Amino acid sequence: MRILAFFLLLTATSALAAPDRLTPDRLTQAAALRDTALAKSEAWPLLESLTTNVGQRLAATPAEARGRDWAVKAMAAAGLVNIRTEAFPMPLWERGTETAEITGAAPQRLAIAALGFSGATPADGITAPIVYFADYAALQEAPPASLNGKIAFIDHRMMRTQDGSSYGVNGVVRRVGPALAASKGAVAVLIRSLGTDYHRNPHTGSTTWPEGQAPIPAAALSLPDAEQLARRAKAGPVSLHLVLTPRFNPNGQSANVSAEIPGTGPEIIVIGGHLDSWDLATGTIDDGAGVAITLAAAKAIKDSGIKPRRTIRLVFWGAEEEGIWGGRAYGEAHKAEPIVLAAESDFGADRIYRLSSNVADTGLPLIAEIQRVLAPLGIAATRNNSAGGDGDVAPLIANGTGTINFEQDGSRYFDYHHTPDDTLDKVDRTQLDQNVAAWAAAIWLAASDDRALRKK
Amino acid sequence: MRILAFFLLLTATSALAAPDRLTPDRLTQAAALRDTALAKSEAWPLLESLTTNVGQRLAATPAEARGRDWAVKAMAAAGLVNIRTEAFPMPLWERGTETAEITGAAPQRLAIAALGFSGATPADGITAPIVYFADYAALQEAPPASLNGKIAFIDHRMMRTQDGSSYGVNGVVRRVGPALAASKGAVAVLIRSLGTDYHRNPHTGSTTWPEGQAPIPAAALSLPDAEQLARRAKAGPVSLHLVLTPRFNPNGQSANVSAEIPGTGPEIIVIGGHLDSWDLATGTIDDGAGVAITLAAAKAIKDSGIKPRRTIRLVFWGAEEEGIWGGRAYGEAHKAEPIVLAAESDFGADRIYRLSSNVADTGLPLIAEIQRVLAPLGIAATRNNSAGGDGDVAPLIANGTGTINFEQDGSRYFDYHHTPDDTLDKVDRTQLDQNVAAWAAAIWLAASDDRALRKK
Repeated sequence: MRILAFFLLLTATSALAAPDRLTPDRLTQAAALRDTALAKSEAWPLLESLTTNVGQRLAATPAEARGRDWAVKAMAAAGLVNIRTEAFPMPLWERGTETAEITGAAPQRLAIAALGFSGATPADGITAPIVYFADYAALQEAPPASLNGKIAFIDHRMMRTQDGSSYGVNGVVRRVGPALAASKGAVAVLIRSLGTDYHRNPHTGSTTWPEGQAPIPAAALSLPDAEQLARRAKAGPVSLHLVLTPRFNPNGQSANVSAEIPGTGPEIIVIGGHLDSWDLATGTIDDGAGVAITLAAAKAIKDSGIKPRRTIRLVFWGAEEEGIWGGRAYGEAHKAEPIVLAAESDFGADRIYRLSSNVADTGLPLIAEIQRVLAPLGIAATRNNSAGGDGDVAPLIANGTGTINFEQDGSRYFDYHHTPDDTLDKVDRTQLDQNVAAWAAAIWLAASDDRALRKK
Repeated sequence: MRILAFFLLLTATSALAAPDRLTPDRLTQAAALRDTALAKSEAWPLLESLTTNVGQRLAATPAEARGRDWAVKAMAAAGLVNIRTEAFPMPLWERGTETAEITGAAPQRLAIAALGFSGATPADGITAPIVYFADYAALQEAPPASLNGKIAFIDHRMMRTQDGSSYGVNGVVRRVGPALAASKGAVAVLIRSLGTDYHRNPHTGSTTWPEGQAPIPAAALSLPDAEQLARRAKAGPVSLHLVLTPRFNPNGQSANVSAEIPGTGPEIIVIGGHLDSWDLATGTIDDGAGVAITLAAAKAIKDSGIKPRRTIRLVFWGAEEEGIWGGRAYGEAHKAEPIVLAAESDFGADRIYRLSSNVADTGLPLIAEIQRVLAPLGIAATRNNSAGGDGDVAPLIANGTGTINFEQDGSRYFDYHHTPDDTLDKVDRTQLDQNVAAWAAAIWLAASDDRALRKK
């Protein structure tokens, strides 16, 4: 009789708890999602399909639109609903011819790639002497007008770091170096690629021009080429013939695509990656991987048959590469929604090694649960609850939404980032699946919970 | 008195021996050359100078001629004498535009490089369906005329091997695959690069056309592109738009350059590398390294002040890449000379791990001495006295000259070979110097010896 009473009590407790805040088996379910994905997730075939059948997806181009068509079909095939495409305006920038040659008695071709929003030379190019700057600080010290008629060569370096922090610190050389050189009279700018590999594949990426500064031609040299040019510059005066003919159209359009696993309650969790890529490769680690990881995680949750309390909304942003156009449009359009948590996967396909967060104190027990379930994946728990709001989710986070940062090992990310080498062969399927395992388990725990996460 | 007599005897023996066959300290001298070079050789600054100030050196072009100017100056600066330039005729082949794009609803650009002696498409290219062959054997099985109007894609693989043997075995796909496809009606040929890296840098290299076979356009895909095209081909029919516009001129000219450390006797030892390179990079591992290693070794011997019995002749051959034009011209022009030993350094700049030979039995004690002096460099002795006569020294060896094969570690050689990535940054200076140490010591031992080496 006492045993029977005990079981009745248990049953009653469960029955009472279920409709309230508890999904009794949520930790068990999260562990099952984790282990199933780890054994084999859907991410690889998704990533192979996107990068093989669509390929590069430059923002505001038909290729990016083909990426959206792919996404809509893949979301539907995964059983997600409420599929929406939300367009937004942005400029279209497209690469043209790009060549650089050392002129004179010992001519040599150098491998370059125009930076996004680079200006153009005339079709037959320009020829000008270069001025060497060892780094961005040296350029800052150059006097006004000292670069009149010259090509500035900024030989600024970044280092290999696991957390990618060197890219953040040194990114200034690409983002504002060209405009600074232009303000001192330069007719063109070359930078050493923001990259860590020694292949003849330059790293592109966006640069910016302040109001009133007309774009000048700006390109990145591969590391072997930057070091070659540095040696030549050290030996004596060097002139370059440079041809860069990108095209710019202020009236372009991109779009975000989203789909949902509807929750039983009103709150929303946003996860995803960005669908656009640079044009030089197939956009595999940047950011086909993020698209595939988050879609595979959503599909794993959907396939498990468990119903979330919070709606899980998968968003594939457009036009991230050229200035987070999709993320900004999304943040503005959805600022009134109860989005309590938002996270983006946008740092390749290598292993997650650490997890940090940025949620209200009421959400910290949830973060601890997530860390407990993710620990068997080798993911270190941290007490860092001030994770940055990078990329497409930054506008949401600035608006009070909480976030989780699934910190991936970026040791080799900048070997391929923004280069022709960002292709499928760079992805380690085992590590890709570890990402899906972490996302599926963590997002399920957050979606089956009801503790407050928003910071304002 | 007995002690005095002993010393007198020693002195008499030395005095008698010196003008005869013995250089009494030759093993000690060889060890000193070895250790001095190992500490720091001249090879790195030579290699840096050639690849920085001259750059690519495509056969029969002004760039190759600038390489010869560099060589003449460098040989003179090293104190070598009898500097000679010997011209020979050969065809000039030069790369033009080269693009490949998958056509249809999901177009994609593929990275290609024309093979040497590729034919040309019209300026606006051709568009044709591809036919997939998993390897060369599959192409062999294709019926006559089955490729009419088609582009053959031969997805033949090579493997990473320390001794480079996979290149030899699989090279047939590049050397004769295009001609075989042409004989079955193909309008163009793409091969998977003969390479071991996953970068978007295709591996060029020569192909050949039998008498009566008009060249057709032939190019290599990088490995990422070959695998992309294979995935697309597996999914359904694929057509390509191909533009390849190389130029061919049957009346070109190249030259060999040589210089000497004169010996006291009539016999000659020939060492060297080839001065020409492919046009895609700066020809650093292929074969600036061989040029720098053998020049630095000769300079080390010259600088030591010791006088060889056999003339040490340094030869920098022209036009090796496009069919050993320089080596063949050299072998023919010098077949009457008493060249007893010939060796070429042409497998990059990585460590020598093994030494083999091909000399008359009378020379085997010399080979044993060389192996003894080289053992501290980690170079394994072998009893293999049937070393191949590859490359530029093959015509000499076919004529009876002996050879030593300094077997280098080729594990990463085919990551860079014939690609835009063959640049200075790929060279490990410590390993480069180990090569110089081995060459200087071995060549000194052979040049100070008089045991017969020729096989006929």
